[in-house]
Amino acid sequence: MTTLPATMFAIVQTHDGYSGAATGPALADAADWLAEAELPVPAPGPGQVLIRLRAATVNPSDIHFVKGEYGQPRVKGAAAGFEGCGDVIATGSGAEALQDQRVAFVAAGAGAWAEYVVTQAQMCIPLRSDISDEDGAAQIVNPLTAMAMVDIAREAGDAFVVSAATSQLGKLMCSLGRDLGLKPIALVRRAEAVESLKQVGAAEVLVTGDPKITQQFAAISTALKPRVFLDAVADQLSEQLFCAMPNGARWVCYGKLSSDLPRLTQMGQLIFMRKRIEGFWLTRWMMDTPLADQMRVIAEVQARFADGRWKTDISERLALRDVLPNLASALKKSDGKVIITP
Amino acid sequence: MTTLPATMFAIVQTHDGYSGAATGPALADAADWLAEAELPVPAPGPGQVLIRLRAATVNPSDIHFVKGEYGQPRVKGAAAGFEGCGDVIATGSGAEALQDQRVAFVAAGAGAWAEYVVTQAQMCIPLRSDISDEDGAAQIVNPLTAMAMVDIAREAGDAFVVSAATSQLGKLMCSLGRDLGLKPIALVRRAEAVESLKQVGAAEVLVTGDPKITQQFAAISTALKPRVFLDAVADQLSEQLFCAMPNGARWVCYGKLSSDLPRLTQMGQLIFMRKRIEGFWLTRWMMDTPLADQMRVIAEVQARFADGRWKTDISERLALRDVLPNLASALKKSDGKVIITP
Repeated sequence: MTTLPATMFAIVQTHDGYSGAATGPALADAADWLAEAELPVPAPGPGQVLIRLRAATVNPSDIHFVKGEYGQPRVKGAAAGFEGCGDVIATGSGAEALQDQRVAFVAAGAGAWAEYVVTQAQMCIPLRSDISDEDGAAQIVNPLTAMAMVDIAREAGDAFVVSAATSQLGKLMCSLGRDLGLKPIALVRRAEAVESLKQVGAAEVLVTGDPKITQQFAAISTALKPRVFLDAVADQLSEQLFCAMPNGARWVCYGKLSSDLPRLTQMGQLIFMRKRIEGFWLTRWMMDTPLADQMRVIAEVQARFADGRWKTDISERLALRDVLPNLASALKKSDGKVIITP
Repeated sequence: MTTLPATMFAIVQTHDGYSGAATGPALADAADWLAEAELPVPAPGPGQVLIRLRAATVNPSDIHFVKGEYGQPRVKGAAAGFEGCGDVIATGSGAEALQDQRVAFVAAGAGAWAEYVVTQAQMCIPLRSDISDEDGAAQIVNPLTAMAMVDIAREAGDAFVVSAATSQLGKLMCSLGRDLGLKPIALVRRAEAVESLKQVGAAEVLVTGDPKITQQFAAISTALKPRVFLDAVADQLSEQLFCAMPNGARWVCYGKLSSDLPRLTQMGQLIFMRKRIEGFWLTRWMMDTPLADQMRVIAEVQARFADGRWKTDISERLALRDVLPNLASALKKSDGKVIITP
């Protein structure tokens, strides 16, 4: 066993519980919600492992969480961050099989933005050696969400709609959709992103600011009949597009990038056209999906990263000690992930 | 076979198709949407029957329909009205078994507000002799909707929420809920209705105009944990109450009494709490439900009317020739059905 320091550097939450607000995954200043701290290096309990961090990722869910807008309450003073990769350097009873393995992990109660992380062994996935640390740091949340949501879409028809399609998750879903022979209809904010999204796999790309987008979408909807809208924005435009989708359409909200509160303008569509509005949360999917199915999906995810079909686009790398001053500006860059290193 | 007149008096639609609006099931003046007409008495085709009307009912769906806000397009010049009861006086091939029977019926493409009606034999239910014409005229749409929706609620838990609970349908659902050992939570507009709703079967009754209704509802929701909201109103208060419901709650909209367009203020609840928003339409239920199950439900409905557990509260009776001048004012009375007689 490695000799460990007594304490570690970490980025910790400065609030408890929920905020009651819903302002979206943007930060004016990380110091509004986070602080630097020296914490005791945690010890793994039964079924747990201690991981020395190699890289952590910054997902929109992390930002929602530290702002108190996520599906679980914050704990003031605890490290932030849900996802990363690193080396298992100590194990609790029952978790010995992971000793010395490099793993991708999810930290169930947060804690990935720290030099050392304790999490459940079952929240760790051993990484093939042909996966980079940076791909390994974003191996679970987005890829599993993409696989699970495209699966929902596939069961419902040939075409599906993806908003915020230039996000890492949006690109994964477009690419996966094309590989499965489906027709992803991508929504993007910037006209410059249209061509790259088509290359990634989108069958159609629409620019949300285009004054004719609802007419354009209506024509595409009539032709391709998308039945599932995988939506991370949830604004009034989302509602309008949902209204232009065919019978039986499902508006599956998995994020809330917009702070706009959409009005339901055509309740009759829910009644007469069997449409419905629902949500998707990976945590729930993991609770509801048999472990064998999860493992099959995880192996498929690694294969896609290993052979280059998928990759994590990095917009910025921040050392842990640079997170507080620089995270807010790093998040303003689009089209890639912010990666945190020790 | 009875000798028939060549023509009949009917109340007909004066518009085609859909209006594109959603203004609710109220009328300023019936003449905006309807006219009196002499039409040829229709002849039954194969599988159809000709019915001499005894009584027709006026449901909110009839009003939505003539205003172009329903799930099927209007046909200008065709008789209005979906539901009634009468005597089968002629049959097409394959429908002979119904000859001379008194039946409750649904007229698939509308047409019940006329002296004679043609509809499919399979849309007719022979009436027991102990059911009155007026109960027979409201035997299908509301009772089946009540049975089907309370069934949805029962599968989800012990308690459920019913809005517009003083409507005929609302009362049926409260009564049925109590009979099944469930706890209906009724929403009413007028404080005077609280006691009568409790007698009908509601476990709790809240007055929608009460400034403390959201707090009152939150306390009841915490105690009784209703998982299904059977909602005919769909306004912002509906949305607020839905937000106060527990994990997994379903907002099942089956009507749109309010022209208010509700905002979705807590999209995160769909994501993290597995809530969803959907609709219910009896026509869809009939298409999706095996005939044997429908027949079982229909027999149960008749037994409830026959033994007095259910009855149709009549607020006003209108002869067909009085519909045009008097329908709008008749509909302003609450707590009962308007019945139309030949």
